[in-house]
Order: sequence, then structure tokens, then C-alpha cells
Amino acid sequence: MLELFLIGIGTGNPDHLTLQAIKVMKEVDLLLIPHKGKEKDELAEIRRQMIREHTDPDGPEIREFLLPVRDPAISDYFERVQKWHEAIAGCWQNEISTALPTGIGKVALLIWGDPSLYDSSLRIASNLTLKDSLKITVVPGITSMQGLTAAHGIPINEVGESFLVTTGRLLRDKGWPEDTRTLLVMLDGEQSFQYIDKDNVHIWWGAYVGMDKEICIDGQLKDVSDEIIARRQEAKARYGWIMDIYILRKE
Amino acid sequence: MLELFLIGIGTGNPDHLTLQAIKVMKEVDLLLIPHKGKEKDELAEIRRQMIREHTDPDGPEIREFLLPVRDPAISDYFERVQKWHEAIAGCWQNEISTALPTGIGKVALLIWGDPSLYDSSLRIASNLTLKDSLKITVVPGITSMQGLTAAHGIPINEVGESFLVTTGRLLRDKGWPEDTRTLLVMLDGEQSFQYIDKDNVHIWWGAYVGMDKEICIDGQLKDVSDEIIARRQEAKARYGWIMDIYILRKE
Repeated sequence: MLELFLIGIGTGNPDHLTLQAIKVMKEVDLLLIPHKGKEKDELAEIRRQMIREHTDPDGPEIREFLLPVRDPAISDYFERVQKWHEAIAGCWQNEISTALPTGIGKVALLIWGDPSLYDSSLRIASNLTLKDSLKITVVPGITSMQGLTAAHGIPINEVGESFLVTTGRLLRDKGWPEDTRTLLVMLDGEQSFQYIDKDNVHIWWGAYVGMDKEICIDGQLKDVSDEIIARRQEAKARYGWIMDIYILRKE
Repeated sequence: MLELFLIGIGTGNPDHLTLQAIKVMKEVDLLLIPHKGKEKDELAEIRRQMIREHTDPDGPEIREFLLPVRDPAISDYFERVQKWHEAIAGCWQNEISTALPTGIGKVALLIWGDPSLYDSSLRIASNLTLKDSLKITVVPGITSMQGLTAAHGIPINEVGESFLVTTGRLLRDKGWPEDTRTLLVMLDGEQSFQYIDKDNVHIWWGAYVGMDKEICIDGQLKDVSDEIIARRQEAKARYGWIMDIYILRKE
């Protein structure tokens, strides 16, 4: 049997690692590190450092692979994502069959945030075709949602109220959903908050939450919208990559 | 200055602790442990064990206090909650002023799950009246949402889709919200899933997620609803307390 461990590692703060994550990291045979090319190499480097810190030199084998990119020639979004997942599963499979030719052993991936929240690893794993059976174990990690609320020192929900976790694309395409005063917006490369009615909306925005270079801005959306866009652009240019997330609340 | 650290500890699995949580636990002057009376003493005991495991005997002072209960004589929900928060803040304040009579030092509370998600600690802290200024630091922890998805080995969101985090009361009172196929339901003491239209709804339910006594059931809601209610009742009778959470998805 092949055992696959998807280990949530938090959002770039090495101290987000849980004791469970460290235990699993130590006990596997193989650790796979995807790298996304030069501009996102910092994300691979954080994983390498965690492994150096918490495993022995004669511990798990480390194998890196270049993460495939989505094929812009495929116009349908879901088909594009599906083909991309298949391509990544192919990379995992190559590395696994090289390192564990019998198809038996323990493999782990270090997942940014948590494997349950806007992460593809579980879906990628379902595209693996293996010699033997596959057992998947998820090790939960700190999400950027929690990194954001911790950075601002706020609860995400109001007392007894609900909140919607959504994406930048949905906010742009569908506007503010009915019956929800609080939105957590993820996967937003286009600062979609600028396209909504900004009156009486508070925003808590954060980039690189949990990391030393964390940036936090909060205030009335109409007052801080431009500042967030400018700081985001500046930071992305400076570091070559950005991950950001925000909460919007109607007041 | 008084520094207050709200440390997320995860959902009862001692290995949910992050390295950051452990570092903060070691460096504070005072750790406060609420206990909820006999039937929930296990929750206090898990905190005591974490402290024994990760701090030195000559480390932080440990003070326990009996957590006040909500006053059923106050009919308004929000007023009842507010008075309860004030009462808890009073308890914190008593313990702090006994242990740190100058009002200066570092105090921590170990928060079940994460301080941002359906937790009152940040609101309780806003009711503190202190001699000096207060600085609050949140240390993020593994939430029951992540405990649930890890236990079932599932992502919470579908590709590019949103999900609503809500409560049992809102599900009962308002029904299934428009435009949302996926719900994460928390704070549900009444198994509110039994009051909705069960056709073509999948449920992933978990109790004590992350703990040795974790129970997970998933399936079509119409098929497993009764089983969940029975297992929940049985477990609550056996252990004297229960915490459970579930995801519903329209298919």
C-alpha cells in the first residue's frame, strides 16, 4: 500500500507547524517539493527549511519537481483545471515510482495552509493511478483565514452570525450575496473589492499573513481601497509574488 | 502593560499544538484555565496536560477558575451573551490581579480551536478594565472545521465555489440559504439537519474531531440522519459532553 500524507504547514511562518505535522514529516520515506519557477521559489525554500529543521539527514528522501502550469489553450475553466491536476498527478507519480519502485511506502507533501481550503492536492491525488491501493491522511494546518484574523486580532464571525467564504471571481461576477454581512475573500488576484459598492463596508486585508513581511490594512473600504491596491502592487513587485486575503463586512 | 495571549490549541488532539503555541505557553507569567464543572472537565484536563507537557514546573503560574454560566433569566439573547462575557472578564480580572498585582506581565489562555471562529475570548477581553494598557496577541490554532475535513479526507469547497459557515440556529430559523450549495454548520446542539429537506443532500458529520474518540459518519442525509442522531446521543451520554460539526452539500 502507498500511504500519502497531505500535511498542512500554515502560511509561511515556520512556527505554524503543528507537532502532528512534524511527527509525520519525520516518519515518511519520501517528501515531494513542488517548485513553481523562479518567482515563487520562496515557497519551495520555506518547505526546504522546514524539512532541514525537523528531519535528519538520513531521514526521508527529498525529491523536487517543477509544478506544471495551466494550459491557456484550454478555454473551459473546469477542463483546464482537470488537465492541470492530471499533469501534477503525473509528476507525483514519476517521483514516487523512482523513489519507491515497489509502490509501497509513505509519501508526504507539505501543503501551504490546509489541504481542505482552496487547495487542489486531494483532487490531484484522485488522479493517481497506482500499482497498489492508496491511503490518504490529511494533517490539518493553519489556514490563511486564521492567519488573517490573528494578524488583525479579530473574530471572523459576529455573535451567532454566519459568514461566506468566497473567491474574488465570484465577488466580481455575482456581487455581494444576499443575507450575508460578512465575506471572507480568497484567490483574488484582481482586488475585486474595488468593483463593489464601497459604502458602509469595512475591510480587513492582509498579505503574507504570519510571515515576517506580513502587511495588514483595515478600515472603511472607501478610505483604504486605493492604499491596499498600491501596497499590494508594490509588495508584489518587490517580492515577485504575493498571497493576500481579506474580510469584508457590511456595517 | 498587560499582554494577553489567546492561544488556539486545536480540537483536543495534543499534537494539534503549533510550535508558536508552545513557545508562547513557555514564555508567559500566568496561564488561566477555565473549567466548566464536572461534565466538561475533560476540556480543562486536556489543557492541564498540555501545560504539564510543554512548560517547566518553575514556569508560568497556573490559575483555574469556574466558568460562569449564562443567566437564563435574561430573555434577550444578545444581552444574555453580553452579561456572560462581562462575568467571564470579571473572573479573568480577579485571577490576573491576584497573580500580577502590578497589572504588568504576560497572561495566556488556551483556546479550544482558534480564537477567531465562534469563540468569545476576543469579545470577553474587550470587557476587561485594567490599570494599564492591554496588548492582545492571537496565536492561530487548528479549527474544528479543519479537524472535520481532515477526518473525512475531503476539501470543504468545490473548485472555485463558495461555502457558508453558519450555525444550527440559523439553519433551523432561516432554512438553506440561496445561492450556496455547501454549508459548514457549527454550534448545533439540536441536530438541525433533521429539519431541512433531506433529498439530494450529502452530510459529512464528525464529533470529537482529532481526538482518539473521534466519530465520523458521512452519506446521503436521508440515509444517515437517524444514525447520526443515535450515535450522537449515545456518545454524549457516555462521555458527558459532545462537540460536533458537519458539512452539508446539495448534489
